[in-house]
Amino acid sequence: MSREIRVTFQPSGRSVYVLPGTILLEAAARAGFVIETPCGGSGTCGKCLIRIVSGECTDCTDAEGCLSSEQAADGYRLACQCRIQDTLIVEIPESSLFQAVQKILSSDTGDKLEVDPAVKKRFVEIPEPAHGDSHSDAELLVKALNRGTPTVTTLQQLPETLREADFRATATLCGDRIIRVQAGDTSAASYGIAFDIGTTTIVGTIVDLVTGTDLAVASMMNPQTSFGDDVLSRIKKCREESGGLEVLHTTVVEAVNKVAGDAARQAGIDASDIYMAVFAGNTTMQQILCRIDPRALGELPFLPAFRDMVNLKATDIGLSIYPDAEVVVFPQIGGFVGGDTVAGIIATRLDQQSEPSLLVDVGTNGEIVLSHGGRLTATSVAAGPAFEGARIINGMRAMQGAIEKVVFNSDVEFNVIGNMKPSGICGTGLIDVTAAMLRAGVLDSTGRILGQEEIPPEVPERIRNRIIADNGQFNFVLADGEASATGDRLSLYQKDIRELQLANGAIRAGISILLNRAGLSADDLGSVLLAGAFGNFIRRSNARRIGMLPQISRSKIRFVGNTASFGAKMVLLSKEESSYAARIVEKTEHLDLSTSPEFQMEFGAAMLFPEDDV
Amino acid sequence: MSREIRVTFQPSGRSVYVLPGTILLEAAARAGFVIETPCGGSGTCGKCLIRIVSGECTDCTDAEGCLSSEQAADGYRLACQCRIQDTLIVEIPESSLFQAVQKILSSDTGDKLEVDPAVKKRFVEIPEPAHGDSHSDAELLVKALNRGTPTVTTLQQLPETLREADFRATATLCGDRIIRVQAGDTSAASYGIAFDIGTTTIVGTIVDLVTGTDLAVASMMNPQTSFGDDVLSRIKKCREESGGLEVLHTTVVEAVNKVAGDAARQAGIDASDIYMAVFAGNTTMQQILCRIDPRALGELPFLPAFRDMVNLKATDIGLSIYPDAEVVVFPQIGGFVGGDTVAGIIATRLDQQSEPSLLVDVGTNGEIVLSHGGRLTATSVAAGPAFEGARIINGMRAMQGAIEKVVFNSDVEFNVIGNMKPSGICGTGLIDVTAAMLRAGVLDSTGRILGQEEIPPEVPERIRNRIIADNGQFNFVLADGEASATGDRLSLYQKDIRELQLANGAIRAGISILLNRAGLSADDLGSVLLAGAFGNFIRRSNARRIGMLPQISRSKIRFVGNTASFGAKMVLLSKEESSYAARIVEKTEHLDLSTSPEFQMEFGAAMLFPEDDV
Repeated sequence: MSREIRVTFQPSGRSVYVLPGTILLEAAARAGFVIETPCGGSGTCGKCLIRIVSGECTDCTDAEGCLSSEQAADGYRLACQCRIQDTLIVEIPESSLFQAVQKILSSDTGDKLEVDPAVKKRFVEIPEPAHGDSHSDAELLVKALNRGTPTVTTLQQLPETLREADFRATATLCGDRIIRVQAGDTSAASYGIAFDIGTTTIVGTIVDLVTGTDLAVASMMNPQTSFGDDVLSRIKKCREESGGLEVLHTTVVEAVNKVAGDAARQAGIDASDIYMAVFAGNTTMQQILCRIDPRALGELPFLPAFRDMVNLKATDIGLSIYPDAEVVVFPQIGGFVGGDTVAGIIATRLDQQSEPSLLVDVGTNGEIVLSHGGRLTATSVAAGPAFEGARIINGMRAMQGAIEKVVFNSDVEFNVIGNMKPSGICGTGLIDVTAAMLRAGVLDSTGRILGQEEIPPEVPERIRNRIIADNGQFNFVLADGEASATGDRLSLYQKDIRELQLANGAIRAGISILLNRAGLSADDLGSVLLAGAFGNFIRRSNARRIGMLPQISRSKIRFVGNTASFGAKMVLLSKEESSYAARIVEKTEHLDLSTSPEFQMEFGAAMLFPEDDV
Repeated sequence: MSREIRVTFQPSGRSVYVLPGTILLEAAARAGFVIETPCGGSGTCGKCLIRIVSGECTDCTDAEGCLSSEQAADGYRLACQCRIQDTLIVEIPESSLFQAVQKILSSDTGDKLEVDPAVKKRFVEIPEPAHGDSHSDAELLVKALNRGTPTVTTLQQLPETLREADFRATATLCGDRIIRVQAGDTSAASYGIAFDIGTTTIVGTIVDLVTGTDLAVASMMNPQTSFGDDVLSRIKKCREESGGLEVLHTTVVEAVNKVAGDAARQAGIDASDIYMAVFAGNTTMQQILCRIDPRALGELPFLPAFRDMVNLKATDIGLSIYPDAEVVVFPQIGGFVGGDTVAGIIATRLDQQSEPSLLVDVGTNGEIVLSHGGRLTATSVAAGPAFEGARIINGMRAMQGAIEKVVFNSDVEFNVIGNMKPSGICGTGLIDVTAAMLRAGVLDSTGRILGQEEIPPEVPERIRNRIIADNGQFNFVLADGEASATGDRLSLYQKDIRELQLANGAIRAGISILLNRAGLSADDLGSVLLAGAFGNFIRRSNARRIGMLPQISRSKIRFVGNTASFGAKMVLLSKEESSYAARIVEKTEHLDLSTSPEFQMEFGAAMLFPEDDV
């Protein structure tokens, strides 16, 4: 039933499996590559240039007439225009990657991020002190550097280190603090690590602070999920269990250390050469990381402990990197709108968009930010864990065995992660099947699955037969026992649709209120930027069909990838980005919808699916 | 043989035992009270006013004619004029204490030190945040304080603490860092501790940072003495033993923590309410305290690791006070001239003396500073441990059983610490007996103890009989077996005199070179300030008789007490004193005499005792 095709991307060699007919742009997004699409994939801007190295795609469209004959001869295509037909090898030029990423990764001199990290190494050759010289070791070093104050750790290293290589040494400066001194020239070994600490997943990226390039990425499931899926369950643990905060803090620090260790091994570097770590996460995760009780986040008026960026030392929270390393925890906006959202705003330059724009990060909590005339308003809604596959009877996370994509042809066709029999369905699959059922008329706008005799006659037989009566309601079979990995039938239940409506409605209500308050309609939006690991894999037309996103042109919906990681990397690499993040927090208004009657009304309305697609 | 008299000082109640005829000023110094004597004890300034509460003294001298009849009727005397005859109770008015001490202790508005510590507590009542308030806890606190940035420790305390007492809380600020927040009003509980960390002794004084008053003093022997008496033995341990530094560091930190604990108990306060610690010690002790290898201090060109003040956190070196407490280690001048000397300079305002002045701290290392026309030159000399009683055959430290004072009358009379049979002789006793032997003609200027037939005929019989021939040399009996605590005869040996000459000569040579270089003679000196625990107990005339001090009027020699502790307390209580200490280090020239041929010559000459007293 699943006829997936392998697409391999160069130069990374990363592969994904997709259904035939998938647009290459989407396949790239699945593989984690966010390709530049200022025109929204309409084929008019020509920015999403890629090169087919081997394999076949659909023929060139009219839009691709913009390519030169040399480009065409070399196999260049527009990623937004060509659909996958067969096993492919595709090269993505650096210049086609989304601006935010490109800024970090590219070595072009154009619009790229200036590599100017807070942490820098300097090699110095100090004239050996002669008899009668009454300066101290510290003064000799500071004089050679022309700035700085050594920390006590550096003072402890100083006498032996200076004499080890005849007063030739490398100092590591963090701003004006000299945090390390090493014998000889070690100036090339200067690394940082950017962390996205999500409720569900922890991702760490090691960056070379000299060249600005990514060296390795490692990730793991947040082990705190064993204490509950969402942030509220973590807050509850802190409130109700003595020592609960300590357990959660230790758990996340251990995970962060594992990710750092894995990434360092991959990069072939010593973790003690990591001199800076930047963390972006939601307010609860950031507070738990700092060992700050998050319970006030769960009580009126939902105050975070801090909003300004927090600077600390690695040893303050037990990070296994250089002990005196600078640790930066992202500034946060308020309530549940945390550092990951701030990172998203700076990564996408959301405040600098010329037209009204939305940044939407869909997860257990949905964070939504509206940029409008240079003003930013942010809110968060509790979407619940449906998009993570939880509370869905046959739901599961987006991992091996999950149905992650569904299309209706003459029957239901789906893609399973890992190219195997399915064990369940994850969030993106859930959105796909719901959208497909709505389009086919198998589901009505109130969210009721219709009986076989209620649905339009043109619904193919095989799809019709999947509707099964169950206690006066109807379920929809995705795979029967033979086709499933467990041997049990996999279905989408009426109750599952209700869960999706709750999640969906919360996001949609948040968006509506932000638009209403700004006096905007959906048509005024220049773009909707979908962020986060999940957002990246949502089929835009389906998210719009189920009403999660406003009914605007699909071309305005753009994937922006893991902006929490991108933003964290930007702060790691540039002091200017750090100030930018601080300015964003200052200018962003936080809207608390948790007890708003307006939200309750919008939420009720948004529970209904749109009657028709645009 | 010992006829000591008890003198009790009020308001402290501290007592000392002294020989009859001792000047009250000296008895007060023995008890640790440094009385103001700008005229050098000549009875002309009238500053050393004390009141006899009970007991008898010698009659008023002519100099005391300056007292009013009311003062005389109330029992007021000049401490420099009256000699002790009988058990006394004496009251020392605050105004008579030496300026440096007075500045700290007095509540007068006159010349006193302004209490303006780096650490301050502030109680704030924060309006409880209402729904819709989108500030963080940190912002609410900072707004109420109108300044400051919370440390991560404070952020960790913040959510619970603010809500514990309805947003009424006390913040502890160290400069602009908010290092603690507590529920309710705890602003009165703000303490600091000043440490003198000597090679031999560790003294800690707890000070109330609100009122500026001393609350308790505790001290103990530096347990590092078990690894060697002087700093060179400690440096050797670091150089030759792997882990030697760690052992020494841990040893001193444990001792410091014990002293802090003892002092806190005495003061009746919680050690976790100590928010600042200031340390003054020699360069070796300060580096070991900071866990900085001191071995470069023992090798050419004898560089310390740092000269500027070091600021760290209590947890950086494991101090058992408030974990985020500010720890200040005194700036140091160079070589072996460390923070204790800088503390001595600021405590005595040495650079502000109108006439050329010397500050001399006599110990295993002698530190000498010359102030002349606003310029400061400092040096240190290795006096060796003779003044500590080491390398003297019957020598011992100034503790229970030590002969600490000797006078010659018809026989030898001495004072034993603790009013018991003697077990040995300590440094001050050694100086006394040597001076007395020189005066009596029992010892010649080359340092040779003369035979009974070589000495002047007027030497009393009992003293003459104490000279005993021994292998072609002579020894001098201090106490025979019956009179000693051990049952063994206690003597001063010819070899002991040689050790004293080495110690004495080193100090004297250092002083001579500083004077020579400045083009000064001893007569140009306006004052010689004797600092340190030992300096405080030296009989000035005897120190001058043996040539340790220049041959200047005794009235110019002043005791200034434990200036390391005083200076440390001043930095604890006043930010301005901290800047002053930094300026002193900048302007003080360090003279390294260790390899100076000039020093060798002066040292040779200074080994000889002066022919005559002035």
